[in-house]
Amino acid sequence: MNVVLLEPDEVVGGSLVVLRDHRATHLREVLGVAVGSTLRVGVVEGAMGVAEVVAIEDGVITIALRSLDETPAPSRLDLLLCLPRPKVLARLLSPIAQLGVHRLLLSGAWRVEKFYFDATILDPNEQRPLLLEGLAQAKDTRLPVVSVHKSFAWLVRTELGPATDDVLRLYADPGESRSIRDAIAQWPARATGRVLLAIGPEGGFTDRERRELGAASFARVGLGSRVLRSDVATIALLTLVHDALAER
Amino acid sequence: MNVVLLEPDEVVGGSLVVLRDHRATHLREVLGVAVGSTLRVGVVEGAMGVAEVVAIEDGVITIALRSLDETPAPSRLDLLLCLPRPKVLARLLSPIAQLGVHRLLLSGAWRVEKFYFDATILDPNEQRPLLLEGLAQAKDTRLPVVSVHKSFAWLVRTELGPATDDVLRLYADPGESRSIRDAIAQWPARATGRVLLAIGPEGGFTDRERRELGAASFARVGLGSRVLRSDVATIALLTLVHDALAER
Repeated sequence: MNVVLLEPDEVVGGSLVVLRDHRATHLREVLGVAVGSTLRVGVVEGAMGVAEVVAIEDGVITIALRSLDETPAPSRLDLLLCLPRPKVLARLLSPIAQLGVHRLLLSGAWRVEKFYFDATILDPNEQRPLLLEGLAQAKDTRLPVVSVHKSFAWLVRTELGPATDDVLRLYADPGESRSIRDAIAQWPARATGRVLLAIGPEGGFTDRERRELGAASFARVGLGSRVLRSDVATIALLTLVHDALAER
Repeated sequence: MNVVLLEPDEVVGGSLVVLRDHRATHLREVLGVAVGSTLRVGVVEGAMGVAEVVAIEDGVITIALRSLDETPAPSRLDLLLCLPRPKVLARLLSPIAQLGVHRLLLSGAWRVEKFYFDATILDPNEQRPLLLEGLAQAKDTRLPVVSVHKSFAWLVRTELGPATDDVLRLYADPGESRSIRDAIAQWPARATGRVLLAIGPEGGFTDRERRELGAASFARVGLGSRVLRSDVATIALLTLVHDALAER
């Protein structure tokens, strides 16, 4: 935990915040804070700053906000992720928040099992603590905006809207030799534009889905000759987009 | 499983190999092979090629090797990884094999808990199936060569030997602004040389360890302003080295 995240309703009406939950436990047992310690804090969807521990009593930690004046820039990366197995998705939510994703579109696809859509991890209340954990790790306050789309074709053809010059649409396809770095380097709007990256399901996109993506102006990019497991591939692809955008 | 890995002693004395273990289960239940199906196969530490299913009986699958003539190039990346928590290391071994690491040096450090060295995951017999799973995913046959080093100072000062022009030594340090890409782009031997990347423990390197690394010609590289959890950081860093080496 590199920043203590506070909910907006915890910071209304004064500068004191009382922590009783896992945040207090972490501060005591892992970080070993004492009265007078200063901490980095952030308000979910808001600013980051500094707080001071003013009291520790019966495991309850009271902090006083000293400043809240740094607002993290929103990520320039949106991720269209064909739904992986629920266990894999649960494991990926923290890394996705750590790496920085503005919108996370979870999509069906031909090779996505229909029953994945019934998984509890699609419940926003299940996702939120995992996303917050990733933000607290990466020192960010901006929660990815998650949406679920059962129909891949409807999402790509209609819901995404028409392609525009300021959003580069890419999809990862094993075996494609063009790299993310080259695709972004050749894109005129790379300094300020946004990237929408689509990642297929475990078995890959079908030819029909590739045609849908092509018709919606998604360009193919590859990750080299090694075939990575979908969770590792997702982390690798997000890393390469951020690196090429120089969001560093 | 994108390649069926065979042990060297399974391919001596003829072209038929009998599979009875998890590989047979995977071929039947996940890939749904039938007599006449062809498979990509590879011999651990050896060549890859093609085999044909010649019999399926009582769950036992017999394959006939048709070719074994592609030898994967060894990775040009060695990883010095300060020992993470045993659970994290267990989770990382498959991704490390997937991404491609020639030598994996597991090291102690000031912020590595001593009891991590007693973990069962340091037993090569525990590591091997996880590494093989990663290779089978990534279509590779070359097992990372794992070694364990309790003393960071002894490893860096003595065991690594003197720095040479054909090995670029890098260490990841949060907050450093120089990127892996820039460090490799400026390195004269980038087309054929090797990279040795050092990654610190959860709490980072101490100043003393940074001095040790500097004295052994390791250059600092950063991963941007976001602080990633050590497992995510390891995957991200390996991805960036491979991308910059254009091992794609």
